[in-house]
Amino acid sequence: MRNVNQHTITDAVIARLADTPDPRLKQIMSSLVRHLHDFAREVQLTEDEWMAGIEFLTATGHQCDAKRQEFILLSDTLGLSMLTVAMNNDKPAGCTESTVFGPFHVPGAPEYDHGDDIANGAKGVPCAVHCTVKSLDGKPIANAKIEVWQADAEGLYDVQRPDLQGAQARGVLRSAVDGSCFFNTIVAEAYPIPTDGPVGRMLKATQRHPWRPAHLHFMVTAPGYETLITHVFREGDPYLDSDAVFGVRQSLVAPWETLPDGHFRLDYDFVLHQAK
Amino acid sequence: MRNVNQHTITDAVIARLADTPDPRLKQIMSSLVRHLHDFAREVQLTEDEWMAGIEFLTATGHQCDAKRQEFILLSDTLGLSMLTVAMNNDKPAGCTESTVFGPFHVPGAPEYDHGDDIANGAKGVPCAVHCTVKSLDGKPIANAKIEVWQADAEGLYDVQRPDLQGAQARGVLRSAVDGSCFFNTIVAEAYPIPTDGPVGRMLKATQRHPWRPAHLHFMVTAPGYETLITHVFREGDPYLDSDAVFGVRQSLVAPWETLPDGHFRLDYDFVLHQAK
Repeated sequence: MRNVNQHTITDAVIARLADTPDPRLKQIMSSLVRHLHDFAREVQLTEDEWMAGIEFLTATGHQCDAKRQEFILLSDTLGLSMLTVAMNNDKPAGCTESTVFGPFHVPGAPEYDHGDDIANGAKGVPCAVHCTVKSLDGKPIANAKIEVWQADAEGLYDVQRPDLQGAQARGVLRSAVDGSCFFNTIVAEAYPIPTDGPVGRMLKATQRHPWRPAHLHFMVTAPGYETLITHVFREGDPYLDSDAVFGVRQSLVAPWETLPDGHFRLDYDFVLHQAK
Repeated sequence: MRNVNQHTITDAVIARLADTPDPRLKQIMSSLVRHLHDFAREVQLTEDEWMAGIEFLTATGHQCDAKRQEFILLSDTLGLSMLTVAMNNDKPAGCTESTVFGPFHVPGAPEYDHGDDIANGAKGVPCAVHCTVKSLDGKPIANAKIEVWQADAEGLYDVQRPDLQGAQARGVLRSAVDGSCFFNTIVAEAYPIPTDGPVGRMLKATQRHPWRPAHLHFMVTAPGYETLITHVFREGDPYLDSDAVFGVRQSLVAPWETLPDGHFRLDYDFVLHQAK
């Protein structure tokens, strides 16, 4: 096809996808091309703006390494992550709701026993966490894999500290026969997402704050159940209504009790959804 | 805002852009968010597909360096580049049409005099190029900056050869008082865009060929005129109707005459559009 113009090019590109063997890939690529072109036409994107977009995406890619995922951060701040979570985790009432995965999960976190301190040196006020893992009908789920990760008192995850060897405030536990799990860590605090990269520049240019309300990340896995990726948020946090990544669900907000010694205690019960 | 769902999240994200000081940035970001979300909802993007997208963009970023721009290649192959060119270069009939910039331009190409061989060692059949630069009313444009770049007989640009020091088949010339310019180079041949990166994987998965019809890149700059970024394509090339980046315009296709000694000669006249 020669002489495509701004109105005919979209169909020309989609026609080029005609022989895609995987029908799902064909559907996704065709829809992507149509929406991408519709965006460019709607704003009448200039060539300088196009180049600014190319440079932004390139810088975002260059910010990604084994310990940082700037494209996930971009997806999070544009609401795409939470949209994808919402579309794919429509569960019956009573099941624990899902939220964003975030860019700071790393595989291979250390295994801990009940009662261990997973903070492992991370700074913060001590906090005991007592949780249970159950099915929708109230049956305890034993030996569920409970992966936890969180920022420290300075708002940094271990992977954001280049000099740190080993995991801090990150670990894997297993639920007991009665579905319970107990570990010590530090209390979660509100923190800003990393602002030293392209996503930070985007937030600044749009005058958005980078803060996330205090939360613990959880990933709970058990055979026969859907994997639950979620947070538990800290009641009273000032950023619960303006989370930079749109991840707050009221059902995930819990009281973090202050104990007489100034330490904290969190109780939370996870309800898994049976696998389809 | 808490408890956004797949239907309410788009407005929630756009509301967060309310304080963007630059109205154009606000417009672009709002439109981008709406179309990005519409895409994800339309295909009901799964979490695995979302992650595949994150990984694809990350790999694309990692493929970009000083000599390779995989995001431009992605934009080119998705038709976004040519769409942007088409929207921004609506010129009166008679002006030379624009086409894609491509990912292989590098600033600082060497300056040449008329009659020089800009191939500078690049392999290929010799080709003399005679061109003129004029305004729409036929007035010669003297001292226009004419930047040329092209692939060699093996389909590679100089920047794709890691061992090569210095420019080959790439140079800058100036038009004479009568608007004319003459240089020697090698004949352009059809070539595949780089397929060893993420864009190549996308083309393979959609069973699209990576070929571009033979062409010379030109960027022509003169005070008082719009910069012209274009190609001259070689008449008879089998890929003129299926250019991998949708860049062919019939007005840019020219005969490349075969001379008695087997060499080639190309004549082409550029008509610049007066700057607004």
